Amino acid sequence: MSLTFYELGCADRDRRFSPFCWRTRLALAHKGLQAETVPCLFTEKHRFAASGQDKVPVLEHDGHWVHDSWTIANYLEDTFPDCPTLFGGAQGHALSRLHDSLANALNAQVIRIVLLDIYNHLDEADKSYFRESREKRFGMTLEAVVADREERVQAFRQALMPLRLTLAHQPYFGGDNPLYGDYALFSVFQWARTISDFPLLESDDVVTQWCHRVMQAHDGLAGKATGYAL
Amino acid sequence: MSLTFYELGCADRDRRFSPFCWRTRLALAHKGLQAETVPCLFTEKHRFAASGQDKVPVLEHDGHWVHDSWTIANYLEDTFPDCPTLFGGAQGHALSRLHDSLANALNAQVIRIVLLDIYNHLDEADKSYFRESREKRFGMTLEAVVADREERVQAFRQALMPLRLTLAHQPYFGGDNPLYGDYALFSVFQWARTISDFPLLESDDVVTQWCHRVMQAHDGLAGKATGYAL
Repeated sequence: MSLTFYELGCADRDRRFSPFCWRTRLALAHKGLQAETVPCLFTEKHRFAASGQDKVPVLEHDGHWVHDSWTIANYLEDTFPDCPTLFGGAQGHALSRLHDSLANALNAQVIRIVLLDIYNHLDEADKSYFRESREKRFGMTLEAVVADREERVQAFRQALMPLRLTLAHQPYFGGDNPLYGDYALFSVFQWARTISDFPLLESDDVVTQWCHRVMQAHDGLAGKATGYAL
Repeated sequence: MSLTFYELGCADRDRRFSPFCWRTRLALAHKGLQAETVPCLFTEKHRFAASGQDKVPVLEHDGHWVHDSWTIANYLEDTFPDCPTLFGGAQGHALSRLHDSLANALNAQVIRIVLLDIYNHLDEADKSYFRESREKRFGMTLEAVVADREERVQAFRQALMPLRLTLAHQPYFGGDNPLYGDYALFSVFQWARTISDFPLLESDDVVTQWCHRVMQAHDGLAGKATGYAL
């Protein structure tokens, strides 16, 4: 079997920071699947052009191309049904959409905290593309986007209340063990941790403690990754 | 079989507004169970004293007392396994905690919008207890709590992004049909709708459209309930 995982890279090719790619990385590990990983710069989209679109994560499985982190998770669940489940059946699959969506909503807050840190870690080949496209999207300079991040992080921490209320009752969103819902939510914090030394979480937060548990899962895959302290 | 459901009442005994009681009401309907309902005022906690605590919802099933909406849902799932599932198995159960927790976090925003409306609908017997206990909790008058609700509702609507992102993909949080996660989240809006004419949602919001679907479920149980327009 051939399994190739195209993910986002930066100047340090070992630093893998895309939150969507982390969802796929952890989903692959959860399924016990080994994939060849190919870090691609923003300006290297031609490497996975066969997927018919221009965003990572992309998975190639025996010549079959799949893209989009949620679609890839579904593909893995359906293609490898005898490996540990990511969702826990049809209802668990549907319910996990909220975890994925909450992660996406939190990403929209985190980007305004770590945007300049991402830029600073990029390969030189990507820097002008990134600055231009993101400054156009936000309507201001990268520096201006993150200027008020000390205030923004307070709002971000408040938005984590649903996570805290859940983790008061169980070690993982999936229950006694992590499921895809855990990986989706964790990817928010792993993204920040791999690209920025800005303290997103307070050390005594139950969310921090849960992150440490996920970082230890699958032989410490996420914990050992190149990055800053949580 | 004897099944008695103690829930919160107000001046109009047909107006059932407690969000936690709505979770139980809809869970009972989902399971196809008929219960005798007993509306209790805040100052009538003696009616369910046998539950060993002082908060509704409380369920009495053949002399067995259960309280707390989440615990009641678990009890119904375990006791009536042949009725339609509320969670979809062990993983679905664990994953549904996020829906329940997100609903609780949203409640903390909605209370600052509808607090005075609740007071205005209470039975005279409850009014002084409610005003005193809530003004102590918030450290200000009921009127002051809701004074800036026009601004607060904007933040509340922004906080619904995870719901919108999910509902862009599926009609219910449970997938093609509602599960307990739907009832938990819906209870936030049903609470507001039954007690306040303040417009919490915009009519073109996908959250509003999903609320209308849940209101039609189980022979329109939630939709027919005494309340204001959504």
